[in-house]
Amino acid sequence: MASSPRSFSILFFFFIFLIDPSISTRTSFIKLPGSVDGSRYCDSWRLAAETNNAGTWDVIPSVCVDSVADYLNGEQFLSDYNVIADYVIAFAKTVEISGDDKDVWIFDIDETLLTNIDYYKAHGYGSEPFDSNSYNEWVVQGTAPAFDASLRLYNALKKLGFTIILLTGRDEDQRSFTETNLRDVGYSGWERLLLRGPKDQGTSATNYKSEQRSKLIEEGFKIRGNTGDQWSDLLGFAVADRSFKVPNPMYYIA
Amino acid sequence: MASSPRSFSILFFFFIFLIDPSISTRTSFIKLPGSVDGSRYCDSWRLAAETNNAGTWDVIPSVCVDSVADYLNGEQFLSDYNVIADYVIAFAKTVEISGDDKDVWIFDIDETLLTNIDYYKAHGYGSEPFDSNSYNEWVVQGTAPAFDASLRLYNALKKLGFTIILLTGRDEDQRSFTETNLRDVGYSGWERLLLRGPKDQGTSATNYKSEQRSKLIEEGFKIRGNTGDQWSDLLGFAVADRSFKVPNPMYYIA
Repeated sequence: MASSPRSFSILFFFFIFLIDPSISTRTSFIKLPGSVDGSRYCDSWRLAAETNNAGTWDVIPSVCVDSVADYLNGEQFLSDYNVIADYVIAFAKTVEISGDDKDVWIFDIDETLLTNIDYYKAHGYGSEPFDSNSYNEWVVQGTAPAFDASLRLYNALKKLGFTIILLTGRDEDQRSFTETNLRDVGYSGWERLLLRGPKDQGTSATNYKSEQRSKLIEEGFKIRGNTGDQWSDLLGFAVADRSFKVPNPMYYIA
Repeated sequence: MASSPRSFSILFFFFIFLIDPSISTRTSFIKLPGSVDGSRYCDSWRLAAETNNAGTWDVIPSVCVDSVADYLNGEQFLSDYNVIADYVIAFAKTVEISGDDKDVWIFDIDETLLTNIDYYKAHGYGSEPFDSNSYNEWVVQGTAPAFDASLRLYNALKKLGFTIILLTGRDEDQRSFTETNLRDVGYSGWERLLLRGPKDQGTSATNYKSEQRSKLIEEGFKIRGNTGDQWSDLLGFAVADRSFKVPNPMYYIA
């Protein structure tokens, strides 16, 4: 459906700029309204984070550790992800697949296809500052489970005929661990796995992922959909026809 | 801070395209997952709606009327709005006001400054198809209350030195009722109230509001922030440096 010029005009006329990194403020230290109890405030904070109203944040509010843990380990998170997956599939079914293998669906990996909750559980559910060393030790173990809902979604989109491209902020030297982890938990049949190479270091996630999407469009791919847990998976340029944000109240990547 | 060329480059490089109206699907008839109870599903539906994952929808799911009513009449909605207002104010305080009265904050009116919950309460909380006749009868009464949080936010932004511009989908012939209603509940000191004129009829909300913002920029205004309950208040072109989505689970305007 969308030719490149059409995509461009759509991209130009329908966009949103929720975050300007140059002027965004750190609001993770926002004060609790006195009249609001912790759980209520934390539910509001999660909504603010999911809608990007909270802007850039470093760690989850310390008062919300239990609330975030309860949410992630309970039924609500599963329901939230499943309802989004249903909306994705409902949209995907309306897309006319051209049959030239150029209709792409992009997936992010961490907190989108794979869950690192076992790592974060041991690190305060996002309340501790990110430690790349210990996180990378976790990643190379290759034991991150799939979300049931994302596996269901992934397979449904594959069956509908989309070309699946995985676009992650993980580094190129984590390719083999990542591929093995993905296959071990049931993912298969992706067209490409795009990881950060040496040239991509130091680029913001929004720019890096936008550049990668842009290259795909230059190659003739039509990016029909995109699914990620971060706004930086979805924002930027060369965005998909529809983008879907899956919940992640543990960390924010700009 | 943001000159026009800078705004343009920011706008070009940081945007999102969550909704393509030409290909969006009506997903308000999405099936309930069998294993999920009504309240849990409805909380998930609200999250999907607030994050724009649900795309365009006509009426709230009939199973969610009680859940939406409970949410709107309870403490969580107040908390959600207050937490967003705190994030808005935290961001607004970082904006350097130039002193030339050109630093604009845009507010939508319905479900942003004024609440029409009394109308929707009598019409199924968004579960009945929208009836413009009965809704307009309500609007001309001019009795819509303010949200406490929005009044607090409005006054805080005014005090910080922003030029307040009200941009609404209401029609020009509702100007006097609207002004009176706003003043009656405590709003004052806006620079302009922009309503839909005869030429704006038939234009989507996203395009209409984008065009109005574009004209403001041409006049030399710098749109520092924008607050609305609809994605169509915030999406499009000529968007603000930061946009904030306040919750509204009752209706969706494309």
